[in-house]
Amino acid sequence: MSIILRCFERSPDGGRGLARDTRVRWALEEAGLAYELRPVSFQAMKEPEHMALQPFGQIPVFQEGDLTLFESGAIVFHIAQKSPVLLPDDANARARALMWLFAAVNTVEPPILDLTIARIVEADKPWAAERMPLVLDRIRNRLGQLSARLGDAEWLEGSFTVGDLMMISVLIRLKMSGLLDEFPKLAAYVARGEARPAYQRAYASQLPTSAGAPLAG
Amino acid sequence: MSIILRCFERSPDGGRGLARDTRVRWALEEAGLAYELRPVSFQAMKEPEHMALQPFGQIPVFQEGDLTLFESGAIVFHIAQKSPVLLPDDANARARALMWLFAAVNTVEPPILDLTIARIVEADKPWAAERMPLVLDRIRNRLGQLSARLGDAEWLEGSFTVGDLMMISVLIRLKMSGLLDEFPKLAAYVARGEARPAYQRAYASQLPTSAGAPLAG
Repeated sequence: MSIILRCFERSPDGGRGLARDTRVRWALEEAGLAYELRPVSFQAMKEPEHMALQPFGQIPVFQEGDLTLFESGAIVFHIAQKSPVLLPDDANARARALMWLFAAVNTVEPPILDLTIARIVEADKPWAAERMPLVLDRIRNRLGQLSARLGDAEWLEGSFTVGDLMMISVLIRLKMSGLLDEFPKLAAYVARGEARPAYQRAYASQLPTSAGAPLAG
Repeated sequence: MSIILRCFERSPDGGRGLARDTRVRWALEEAGLAYELRPVSFQAMKEPEHMALQPFGQIPVFQEGDLTLFESGAIVFHIAQKSPVLLPDDANARARALMWLFAAVNTVEPPILDLTIARIVEADKPWAAERMPLVLDRIRNRLGQLSARLGDAEWLEGSFTVGDLMMISVLIRLKMSGLLDEFPKLAAYVARGEARPAYQRAYASQLPTSAGAPLAG
């Protein structure tokens, strides 16, 4: 069954792989699954055809036969179930991989998205400069806790799983901010993820869609 | 195998069921699984014993034999896999239930948590009043999209799933704000969830832990 991935026609991130389709491309590359791209313009993303597939008007959308999925977390978990590279066999180990996937998108990513909002959507507001230290400190709090938990381990649960894939994808958003450099164990963890051949292929595959000035990170 | 749930010793929400252990209690009640509570104080939540189980110093923590899980999304999905009430048999339907679970915590909840931050953590900041309309409009945007997708359906995917359980749990956080009343279809959807006997039992079970002044919602 062929896999179709709806992604940005032109990603606004200047080629840094921050769009949420990159994490799906990475999972597909780890699993060794072929896929076709369906680039969607910003305008088309808000039109009925796309909104019928993705009610929040976003990318990515994953289609495989009768199944249509949105939410990058659900998509990468669906892909992970097809690949021992992304999910171990043991039921408890699978539950903990999914736990880290949720921790990435529900505990670590929200304060990071606040930084994007603060730097882009609210950049011209009168409170922007004064509020920024609060936004950064909320991220530092989570990074400190995550770094303490990771310690000197290579991955979060022994071997690489889809939980690492998502956590690293979320942390990559911080690369330009300098915050990651304050946590050398996390910076090294991200570098290990980026060094994986599957990530390299995913990164290369999203580069041609990038255009325009990079977003502040 | 007995199930242990670590929850707030004293929930700060004044008994409105907003703590993240309520959604887990709800899932356990839907699945008809017995569980024991291990209430944790705010102080104990930051101590090494708890942090070893929950690296971000939060509740809930779910323990079942050798398995320890945090992240309410991962916990309710683990429970859902034990119950046809929460997850259908069909593989594609299960993937879409997980998709709505992720949509709840990763797309709908973040702007709602921003409201909590704006009303509590940043309530005394000089920008609090001026920034509030932006925070509210980001929530309205998501609620409008979700309401359009739900339409006149009872649940998000035909029959009730763990995706509805989580989406309703997230929307309940808005009850006191009045925002939900702007979207009657969502208000009715939340009311349908709250009317379920399993929700009623979960709500009643968290009431004794509630104490103190309610948080602004």
